[in-house]
Order: sequence, then structure tokens, then C-alpha cells
Amino acid sequence: MAYFKAYSHIGVHEEMLKDHVRTNTYRNAIMHHKDLISGKVVLDVGCGTGVLSIFCAFAGATRVYAVDASDIALQAMEIVRENELSDKVIVLHGRIEDVEIEEKVDVIISEWMGYMLLYESMLGSVIFARDKWLKPGGLILPSHASLYLAPITNSHRYQDSIYFWRDVYGIKMSCMMPLAKQCTFMEPSVETISGENVLTWPTVVAQVDCYTIQAPDLETITAAYKFTSMLQEVVYFNLWSPRAMIVPAPLHGFAFWFDVEFNGPVRQKFKKQASQPLDVNMQNSNPSNKKKKADVSIVLSTAPEDAPTHWQQYWRPMQSDPADEVCNMGHIALEGLQHESCCAEICTMNTSQHEPYYAPKLSNMADVAVVADVP
Amino acid sequence: MAYFKAYSHIGVHEEMLKDHVRTNTYRNAIMHHKDLISGKVVLDVGCGTGVLSIFCAFAGATRVYAVDASDIALQAMEIVRENELSDKVIVLHGRIEDVEIEEKVDVIISEWMGYMLLYESMLGSVIFARDKWLKPGGLILPSHASLYLAPITNSHRYQDSIYFWRDVYGIKMSCMMPLAKQCTFMEPSVETISGENVLTWPTVVAQVDCYTIQAPDLETITAAYKFTSMLQEVVYFNLWSPRAMIVPAPLHGFAFWFDVEFNGPVRQKFKKQASQPLDVNMQNSNPSNKKKKADVSIVLSTAPEDAPTHWQQYWRPMQSDPADEVCNMGHIALEGLQHESCCAEICTMNTSQHEPYYAPKLSNMADVAVVADVP
Repeated sequence: MAYFKAYSHIGVHEEMLKDHVRTNTYRNAIMHHKDLISGKVVLDVGCGTGVLSIFCAFAGATRVYAVDASDIALQAMEIVRENELSDKVIVLHGRIEDVEIEEKVDVIISEWMGYMLLYESMLGSVIFARDKWLKPGGLILPSHASLYLAPITNSHRYQDSIYFWRDVYGIKMSCMMPLAKQCTFMEPSVETISGENVLTWPTVVAQVDCYTIQAPDLETITAAYKFTSMLQEVVYFNLWSPRAMIVPAPLHGFAFWFDVEFNGPVRQKFKKQASQPLDVNMQNSNPSNKKKKADVSIVLSTAPEDAPTHWQQYWRPMQSDPADEVCNMGHIALEGLQHESCCAEICTMNTSQHEPYYAPKLSNMADVAVVADVP
Repeated sequence: MAYFKAYSHIGVHEEMLKDHVRTNTYRNAIMHHKDLISGKVVLDVGCGTGVLSIFCAFAGATRVYAVDASDIALQAMEIVRENELSDKVIVLHGRIEDVEIEEKVDVIISEWMGYMLLYESMLGSVIFARDKWLKPGGLILPSHASLYLAPITNSHRYQDSIYFWRDVYGIKMSCMMPLAKQCTFMEPSVETISGENVLTWPTVVAQVDCYTIQAPDLETITAAYKFTSMLQEVVYFNLWSPRAMIVPAPLHGFAFWFDVEFNGPVRQKFKKQASQPLDVNMQNSNPSNKKKKADVSIVLSTAPEDAPTHWQQYWRPMQSDPADEVCNMGHIALEGLQHESCCAEICTMNTSQHEPYYAPKLSNMADVAVVADVP
């Protein structure tokens, strides 16, 4: 049994370490803040194999407390020893809420992000550690996080799983298509969404300032959105016809992704905007947000247009009629994201028909409740 | 809940239909035996979406009984209707042991093969149907099956998962290697093994003649094997050295695969050989068995050197010292393969040391008991 625990751990850590975007961005961020780390005391919340702690030691930290509740801490101790850093990196095997640290720290580092940023994430532990041990004016890496939402199209998947049934080795199987459609669009999934599938600029669902956020802020996140699709696609009347129509690309659901920034304690530019209705889309405020961020700070992005990471994207499928998707507005509520079970309610209102209506297609989605009170 | 059942079904059937090697070989076999199918009565055991039944109708069958115990039978009925074959293809929703068929049949067709040929397979249902309904001299497709075993090397996986830990972003993590080795070589898995990884000719573990096999024959399968590796690899002393050594490729376990043949009722060439000790290796008897088969009958092969199928190969990993693997002999027992739980005991004896010994490394394998009585 202990064996299997170890197995799952080593597989997970191998995957995370092999995510070069993740690990290299953390290393770059640590080296970028060398001045604030050298000669200082660091706390690594959820240290895993200890790689971030050791990067901090390489950056000149006097002492690093590396804390992990899982058995991987025992391996981290071995790794610290193998790198002859036992005098600098102190591995503590236990929950951050239970371990004892005798001094205040200058820096907190943590890789706490889960799928959809907050799903089963350790951000609560980072907040606990910050309030208990971080010196005033101390550094938190990462410092800020944003969760994004955008409508996507996924025609390739649609054709591959739905249209497939039209003709199977010369046998007609169109009668399978309704069931195939229901099955494909039933369950949310973590998968890779290409930048080409995103219908328009994303909206910001949540913003986290690690210097100021409080645990209750994470319990329920709500945001309103308004999307106008920018993507059109060419549809041929049939396989052999040269005639084609340009139509709005069909909406196949919503994708979530996130990025985190590594800023010093001074630059606390973020304000919580997530609850403001219908004004948070990036096309209104900041169409090239990511690029602007890249000028001023180090960003770890899991966006569809960026290099892939092990987080991929979170796709919440939705069936809809291809002609409808010119404009979409609605309301999203995320609950219990930090716990094992989470609930994301997406309510959409489609304005392309001039008479707004509540998308009834959502009722196909197994674990999604449709909220009726869209503004 | 019914929804989820349907979901799992549709996914499984999509995967099987998209396995072109599987479906096209069946279609070819049906068309190859058109003379024996046209104007005749066919029984399709475990019909799924009904694709094989419809191929038989296309080949001129007067009547096809398509039987499936799962809810996919309801979809098969729809598909038969959509293809206007309801007068010819009769879909029966029930277990083959329970359904009623009023007449004897000329042909039994079935795609009954599971992983490792027999794991959770429907061969028992085919035997039942044969004994109850097949006319004397009737046709069974497929007619014969063979399960193969060969030692394999998997250095790429080894390097990717074990050597990875030597240097992780400039941090030494060699202390993780023993755990990583244990984890990688602990559990058997279904995966794609390349033909280049196979150390020598396979041995035949089991042979099935669908015309004559009886259910008790499937309860326990035992076979002895003797392998002499034919594969060597070049090992460099270190990354920068031009000096290299040619050594036997290391043994990383055993792979199982199978093929099935589609022969008429006359050609019953197979004899059960699986229990004969140490003389069943193909290098002794029939080094190009597959090619010979291809001359005289239609073969669906899941061998590593052939086009991939959804069955892939079954890899039973085994840790061993690289220098040992010149010659391997041993004994394998497969039990309960037809049931949900199965047990494959592999006992190896290595003769490269002149003093044969029983490989103690097997004790790492979670569900494998080492048999001590090797001949």
C-alpha cells in the first residue's frame, strides 16, 4: 500500500518536473528576484521533491524551510542530502498548519495551482503560511493569479466523434449521432485547447493577489461575461461543391485557463474585479493583457495560445445550434473549487435571436445546474 | 445512470470501429468466404453495433441473428432499420445463453478477443453457441487463434523514467532512481511495444481451434519457454566518449500478443501444443509463421511488427540486470483469464551464469506469484 502511494507520488512529480514551462518559469522567477532571496529565509509550501527550495538555495538563501504533508518529503530529504544542502534546506514532513518554524520568513514560494487554477489547490495553505510567518514587506512567489474564461469551438472533435457515425465502412449509422452528441458534450474535461479554437478574447473570472487575498474570498467566485464571437469559418455545401458559406464558428462550450505572475511586494497593481458585471472582458479593457504583463514581470501562462503545460485547459462542453453563436452573455459561479468536489454553474443568454433566452441545452450537462437569474 | 452506460458503450464501439485493422480484416474475411455465407443463416455472437452482421447481409446471407447482452443491441436495431435490413438481420437483446433461436445456423461470426487474447473474452459464449446451433461442417469466423509470448527490451522507457532522475534542472536526484525503477517495473500494462523491442522469436503460449476447443481447455493454460536473445545494443562508456561496447540488450519483461485466422471448416491444421515443454518456440519450428499463414488464410494480427490495433500489446515488466539476459528459460501459467481477475505466473530461469537460478526480481511484481518448480 505504501508502495502504491509512493508510485502515485513519483509519477505525479515526474510529470510536474517534466513540465519545462512550469519548472523553468519558477527557476527564472527565483533568479529574477535573487536580490530579495540572497541572504534571506525562505518557506516553500508544498515542496514536493524540493526543487524550488534548492533553486532558492542556489539563489543564495541562508535557510529554506521545505514543507510537504505527503511522503514525498522523505524523498526530498534524500535529495537535499545528495546535493549537500542539508545545512541550508530543512525539510519538514507535515501539514503547513501543523509544522513548527521558529522564525519569521522573508520569502514564501509555492507551486499551489490546480486545474482551473483553484481546483484542489493549496492556496489556502499559502494564505495560512503568509499570515503566520511572512515578515511585513516580504516576497511571495507567485504574487498574482488570474483565471480566464472564453467561449470555444471544437469542430475537429465534433466531426471526429459525431459525423463519424454518418458512414461506417459503407454502413449508415446516423441514428447514433444524437447519442454520440449527448455523450461528447456531457462531461467537462481537462484537455488541450488550441488557440485557434478560442472564439474571442477571454474574460477574467477571478483575480488573486497573494499578498492580500483572504481564505473566505475563495469560497464562491462569481463573474458575469459578455462575449461577441470574432471567429468565422468556411462551410462547404457538400464535399464536392466549390460553393461555400462563411458562417460564425459554432460554440462548443467554454474553456478556463489561468496565469500567475511573479512580482515583488511593491507592485501590487491588481484589484479584485471578478464580481463586476459584464465589464471585465479583456476586449474592453486590455486586449493584449498577457503581452503587457510580459514586459513588466515573469508570467507562467496556461493559455491556449501559449506553450502547453501539464495543466492543459479545462473544457466545459455545451451543445448549441451553429447559427446562434454571434453573441453570448451570462453569468458564472464557481463553488467549492478548493475542495474535492466543485461546482461550476454557467448560465448563458444568447442575444443573436434578439429575444434573449436561457440556453436549455445546458440541461444535458451532468453536473451543472442552470441558474435562472441572469442580469 | 443509463446515460453513463450508454456513454461507455458508445466510446468503446467508436474505438473498435475506428480500429481499421480489426474491422477491415473482418470485412475481408467475410467477403473471402462469400460462397459459404451467401444464401445461408449466420449467428453473430456479441454483435455490438451490428457491423459484422450487416457485412454478412451484404455478402448475401439470407438471415443473420445478431445477439448482444448489452444495451448497444438497442442501437444495433436502429442501425439495421436505417440500412433497411430488418427483414434479414434479427437483433436479439440478451445473453447468448438465454436467447431463443428457432433454427440451426450455417455460420458463426464473432469478435470475441480481449486483451492477451482471452482476458474477459467471449470465447466461452462462442463455444456455447457452436455446440447449440452450428450445423455440422458449418463455418466459424475466426477459426483459429494463437497467443504469443516474447521477451522484450524497453530502454527508451527505462531512460525516460529512470535515468531522468540523474540530473533534474541541475539538481542531483539519483536517490530517486531505485524507487522509480520499482514503480516503473511494478505493474503490467497494455501499451504499444515496437517490433524493435522484441528480443527474439516469440513462443506460442496457447492455440485455439474454434471448431474443437472446449470450455475447460480455457481454465488454465500453461506453457514452457526457452529464449535466446538475438538483440544486441551499442553502449557508450559515457556521453562524450567515442568508445562503445556491444552488449546483449537488457531484458525488461515479456510481451503477449495474439493473432486470429479466418479459415474454412475443412482446414483444421492446428494441434494444441501449448503444454509441451520447451519445444514450442517459433525459432525451432517455424521462424516465419506469420508470413506462411498470410499465404493461405486471412490473419488479424496484433503483433508488435504489424500495424497497431486497439488491443496493443500486454507488457509484463520485469527488472533484471543487463548482463544476465543471454538465455532465458521458464514456465508460464495463465489462470482465470476469462474472468475479471486473472493471474499470469511467469517463472524464469537464466542460464547465462551456467548455474541456473530462479529470478528473485519477480517478487517486485504486485500480482505475480513465482512458481518454484521449473523443469
